[in-house]
Amino acid sequence: MRSNRVITKKQEFNKEQLRLNETLFCNANGYIGVRGTLEEGVPSDISTMRGMYLGGVYETIPMKQAESLCNLIEEKQTMLNVADTQTIFLSVDGEVFDMQKNECAALRVLDMDRGFTERRISYRSGSGKEFDIRIKRVAHLHCPNLFTQEYKVRALSADAEISFDSRHIADVTNYSDPDDPRLAAESASYLGVEKCEVTGDKSVTLSRTGVSKISIAVCAGHRLYVTDENGVTDGGRAADDISVIRDGEISAKFSLTLKKGQEAVLVKYSVFADSLREDDSERACLSIADDVMGRDIRELYDAQKKELDSFWKVADMEIKGDEELDLAMCFNMYQLFQSSPRQEKVSIAAKGLTGEGYEGHYFWDTEMYALPFFVLTDTEAARRILSFRYVTLDKARENAALLGHKKGALYPWRTITGEECSGYFPSGTAAYHINGAVSNAVISYYLSTGDEKYIVSEGLEILIETARLWLDTGNFDRDGRFVINEVTGPDEYTCMVDNNFYTNCCAKYGMEWAVKLFEKLSEIPEVRALSERLCVTDKELSEIKKAVDAMYLPFDERLGISPQDDSFLQKPVWDIKATPKDQFPLLLHYHPLHLYRYQVCKQADTVLAHFLYPDSADKGTMEKSFRYYEKITTHDSSLSTCVFSMQASRLGLYEEAEKYFGDSAKLDLYNRHGNSGDGVHTANMGGAYMAIVYGFAGIRISEEGLFVNPFLPGSLEGYSFNFTYMGRLFRLQVDKESAVMTLLDGEPTFFCHGDEKYKFDKTGESVRWNLKQ
Amino acid sequence: MRSNRVITKKQEFNKEQLRLNETLFCNANGYIGVRGTLEEGVPSDISTMRGMYLGGVYETIPMKQAESLCNLIEEKQTMLNVADTQTIFLSVDGEVFDMQKNECAALRVLDMDRGFTERRISYRSGSGKEFDIRIKRVAHLHCPNLFTQEYKVRALSADAEISFDSRHIADVTNYSDPDDPRLAAESASYLGVEKCEVTGDKSVTLSRTGVSKISIAVCAGHRLYVTDENGVTDGGRAADDISVIRDGEISAKFSLTLKKGQEAVLVKYSVFADSLREDDSERACLSIADDVMGRDIRELYDAQKKELDSFWKVADMEIKGDEELDLAMCFNMYQLFQSSPRQEKVSIAAKGLTGEGYEGHYFWDTEMYALPFFVLTDTEAARRILSFRYVTLDKARENAALLGHKKGALYPWRTITGEECSGYFPSGTAAYHINGAVSNAVISYYLSTGDEKYIVSEGLEILIETARLWLDTGNFDRDGRFVINEVTGPDEYTCMVDNNFYTNCCAKYGMEWAVKLFEKLSEIPEVRALSERLCVTDKELSEIKKAVDAMYLPFDERLGISPQDDSFLQKPVWDIKATPKDQFPLLLHYHPLHLYRYQVCKQADTVLAHFLYPDSADKGTMEKSFRYYEKITTHDSSLSTCVFSMQASRLGLYEEAEKYFGDSAKLDLYNRHGNSGDGVHTANMGGAYMAIVYGFAGIRISEEGLFVNPFLPGSLEGYSFNFTYMGRLFRLQVDKESAVMTLLDGEPTFFCHGDEKYKFDKTGESVRWNLKQ
Repeated sequence: MRSNRVITKKQEFNKEQLRLNETLFCNANGYIGVRGTLEEGVPSDISTMRGMYLGGVYETIPMKQAESLCNLIEEKQTMLNVADTQTIFLSVDGEVFDMQKNECAALRVLDMDRGFTERRISYRSGSGKEFDIRIKRVAHLHCPNLFTQEYKVRALSADAEISFDSRHIADVTNYSDPDDPRLAAESASYLGVEKCEVTGDKSVTLSRTGVSKISIAVCAGHRLYVTDENGVTDGGRAADDISVIRDGEISAKFSLTLKKGQEAVLVKYSVFADSLREDDSERACLSIADDVMGRDIRELYDAQKKELDSFWKVADMEIKGDEELDLAMCFNMYQLFQSSPRQEKVSIAAKGLTGEGYEGHYFWDTEMYALPFFVLTDTEAARRILSFRYVTLDKARENAALLGHKKGALYPWRTITGEECSGYFPSGTAAYHINGAVSNAVISYYLSTGDEKYIVSEGLEILIETARLWLDTGNFDRDGRFVINEVTGPDEYTCMVDNNFYTNCCAKYGMEWAVKLFEKLSEIPEVRALSERLCVTDKELSEIKKAVDAMYLPFDERLGISPQDDSFLQKPVWDIKATPKDQFPLLLHYHPLHLYRYQVCKQADTVLAHFLYPDSADKGTMEKSFRYYEKITTHDSSLSTCVFSMQASRLGLYEEAEKYFGDSAKLDLYNRHGNSGDGVHTANMGGAYMAIVYGFAGIRISEEGLFVNPFLPGSLEGYSFNFTYMGRLFRLQVDKESAVMTLLDGEPTFFCHGDEKYKFDKTGESVRWNLKQ
Repeated sequence: MRSNRVITKKQEFNKEQLRLNETLFCNANGYIGVRGTLEEGVPSDISTMRGMYLGGVYETIPMKQAESLCNLIEEKQTMLNVADTQTIFLSVDGEVFDMQKNECAALRVLDMDRGFTERRISYRSGSGKEFDIRIKRVAHLHCPNLFTQEYKVRALSADAEISFDSRHIADVTNYSDPDDPRLAAESASYLGVEKCEVTGDKSVTLSRTGVSKISIAVCAGHRLYVTDENGVTDGGRAADDISVIRDGEISAKFSLTLKKGQEAVLVKYSVFADSLREDDSERACLSIADDVMGRDIRELYDAQKKELDSFWKVADMEIKGDEELDLAMCFNMYQLFQSSPRQEKVSIAAKGLTGEGYEGHYFWDTEMYALPFFVLTDTEAARRILSFRYVTLDKARENAALLGHKKGALYPWRTITGEECSGYFPSGTAAYHINGAVSNAVISYYLSTGDEKYIVSEGLEILIETARLWLDTGNFDRDGRFVINEVTGPDEYTCMVDNNFYTNCCAKYGMEWAVKLFEKLSEIPEVRALSERLCVTDKELSEIKKAVDAMYLPFDERLGISPQDDSFLQKPVWDIKATPKDQFPLLLHYHPLHLYRYQVCKQADTVLAHFLYPDSADKGTMEKSFRYYEKITTHDSSLSTCVFSMQASRLGLYEEAEKYFGDSAKLDLYNRHGNSGDGVHTANMGGAYMAIVYGFAGIRISEEGLFVNPFLPGSLEGYSFNFTYMGRLFRLQVDKESAVMTLLDGEPTFFCHGDEKYKFDKTGESVRWNLKQ
């Protein structure tokens, strides 16, 4: 087990670093996400994305189509910036603390063991007095409605007059960047402030969205303590004055004389609640605020620590020989954990709760890239993430009907509520493989947990409805092959193609498992009821089986590879090497129709199919395919290299596995793509995890059980991690010579390595074997 | 030669008839288009499209994409309603004439021999006095800037106090219908009125568009005459009062006492000019107004008659045995003539100048469906229409570059100025066959006229640039076939397909002719200069030839047909018969992606290819293809049945030729689709002409000469028409027994019928042959 998971960065005061740090030092707990902006703000010429988000809280906004066609989507949801309670101004002897003007040495800290971020500042006022400032922020895991700031100021060199002006602002707007299509194009105020008042020692605001009619209640409360030179803290006090200073903004003011050596500690409690979760969000908000403000902040910090202890116990990972990678993986897992929902009905957005990129939408990434981490480390969280697709199954049915399907459910390409929010359907809605990602997630979860109860209550219905959709989408062609036409695979550089290899594999696998589990569980009363409710007939099941058996998986004799789709190989090959570096990502420099005419892939497509579905082709085909697609893939998507790495590991191409793993794990922490300031790349974080666990360690979970097949990349000295499988906790440790599997917790079990089956008779047992050199 | 071409309809006062009549009795001259609205207006609860349009005059408006992708089009042009000078209020003894309130018997007349429309009204005033009203409108062909109204009121039963209030309104808006995607969705005022004043006896307004910065000058002048009981007309007089009554609106008032038997005649001259054509549109306008107002109106009418005499001399057509059809064809040809531009730089819009449907955009229809009529009846007009594509060649080059092409020109799918205005590129810009329509038009014009000068000065450059585009779009695949991927054929129910048979045929033909004419004319200095300017190399020409030879024209062995595209036949067949009638057109009831997955065609696609390119398949394949596609074509486009009819004629399927010809010729005049109120279906009118001339009469023009192969549909008693070919005027007369070809005018020549070649030694000669029974 690692001993410490702390990231410390020098605070720099430039636009790029500020934006990046807003992302890196974001506090989130699956419900609240607060970007790591500075309490005192930044000058107006520095663009900052000052946001507080609530998972699943959105507004519906128009998305007019340039040309109206039947049943196209003309509105979408967008994640909201709900409030600003981060703002706290500090004044010393009447001088407003300002990092840009004053002499400061500052650090930013992310403590992932304790679950907080902290700013540590040595500050020298204009009059030469010295202060030590520490501002700690916590998005509380045990109380998801709560975000706290603890603002400490210690007078080091002289007495000083100190004052705080702490704001609660409900009148906020979303961030926009008209130059980047991946962000919302228009800055807009989506919230109407309906209440803004002071109730006792707290400020309360109630805002409401105009269309989605969601109410958001925010309550802020304060306690100011003074600790004397001897470390004795007083009983605390409320604000000297708290009042509405304009519609939508409340100010709480504190003044005191701080003697040299004394420390002022302002604790600010921000509580959020919304009408999606609470009948009376204002009341819920106030009641939680009363509760938490009655408790010592250290008690709350202990509870936070406990949550993180449980998390790391299962998710611990250590990498030797590359400190940056080691820390980056820690950061990635922490971010995944931070963004995973504590409640049902919501999922994990493309940027988690760290930014407004992709408008807070959930994509296939969640199931395909983020979920595997949870399946192996936090099955409860995995279950919650999966629940989103069950809750929105009816909307997926409606979506299918909009697309003209007579039966089945089609999940939306991007969404918050379950309704499609994709504006350009050829590379949105047409990506039917989202259905594959969902059914695949259901099956993976089942294979890792054996949770039959979940399958009966939710999973099976998803499997049946997605299988039906495939049956209705494809058709038996003149040769009796089951073909699926006009869909878009993961590679969006070719859209609306016929027999996308990846999609057909997904469809086959999903349909196969739908029937398998339906038949296996058919005697269970709930399943019988489900079958009746959905009018599942034997004829339908046999049609699905027939489609599975006849599923067309294209194979190209001449090249000995799996072609990405029917016409892919008749197109000219894009010359990636001859393309100037500044032309990537291609999607920002070429008209889509132009891209569609080339053999060029934005990301892993067939290679991902080969990895996920090892029976989809023989090893020779997979090797040749890997070699073929690596030449024509630009990896313009951050979901790509991890897949190439995993598949290279699977194929025993260890150098390639390492090469493709490359910097991907470091993408956000070290801002390798230069755009982490907009928010983290959640799916890439999951992908990096998979590249290690599924790739390097060769973990594979199938109906036959748990398989392990690790190797050590040449650049590393070792790695180890914990994971769960069928209710047991394992640890795999790999170093230069050997691998050790340990059953850390749980009932006797076995696992496989190559053709060998290893048994654990009791907790604590280990199996060691030498690695091939 | 027909003796009279007059349409007379009873005026009915209901919404549908009013709207329809606005279209049917529209006056146009290729520059001005004035819908046949009522001078006195209609009650505000009746929706009317009160429009005056100027060919090519547009505003640029935003067309935001729902999702931003690289190089997508985000603005478009829209045709403008430029003014309202139609409005004239008549009062009798203080009672405002109102057809809805007063007792009236009214007719509407379209005189296509003389080129006017007329309202003929018997009107009984509230006090029981009787009047005869005639309002004649002319859009003058010899003076395209001029539109006149002649408003006659005769007192039949008693003396009366008459007054006219004639308006000139510059402050107008475009029409909108939010329920119909084919019309503009937003009603908007695109014109700013910059001047609105009275100059002597005329009113003048100057308006300007905000973005395209086009100025439109409109001048209105009047003369009021009184004709006494003996038919003697006075010298006329100007308005009693003419003044600006609000910003953008001027009123000219006249009062007089009309004795029983006398007739008051108000002649209103509206003159239009715009800054696209004139350096000083206001001055041009005033100068034209001065000129025309100095002439007797009868002189102008005579000039109009002369223009129509010349037109009908060449375009005369008579059909025996179906009076409705006979009149409808007359109407169709007249409308085509009315909408054809008198100047270069503009083309013929989808609705001509009769309405705002499709926003006044030009599509492939102009070249493919309307142009053949002009090539055979008015080569000057054909040449003007063709010039639009030459004038906009640079914009087509820019469009190609936007799409990522390194060379060549890609014409826009819909446009006014030459810039793409298509919002959904998969069924817009991706319809590369627009390039085929343009090159095809150049070649057809050349084959019919032998106009080498045109080819040298304009046509060849178009042929080379479109050929280059094909070369850059397609590629030689692994089998050495030249394939063209990701384009959309005429059938928009399948988009972005590979090797659309029609498109590949177009490309082959266009490329073949580009090389052929280039080589043939290579010694001409202008061609040598062109070759240098365009950097045409031998290598390039040989690549084009190679592509022509290797062009992949798919053939399906199993069905013996030409498949519409590579994957068409692997899709399930749409059950047209089982589809409820109210679900057509399918595009208004099914998501495009759903349609894409079926074998179902909006319109002729492969069948059109077979017709246009008789060498593209053998007769057996064409027959089988015809039978195959007729089962899966919905004819949701008005461009479809005429093609099926022509091809049936070609194949000798005479019953089918008649069946598909059906009512299409009567579509607008008899409002068969119920939507002619929005404007005429220009392309369908051309299509009906082709179905008779190319179809029934079997006229075909190729390098080998003129071919004629007529038959008489069973339901007709005969037909005859004139047409030109290589500067000669012919007449073909077909009756139940025989066909007669006559050389009406021109040098000795020959034509072919079957394997026979017939010679004409001099003008006036005829050749007769018996028709097969």
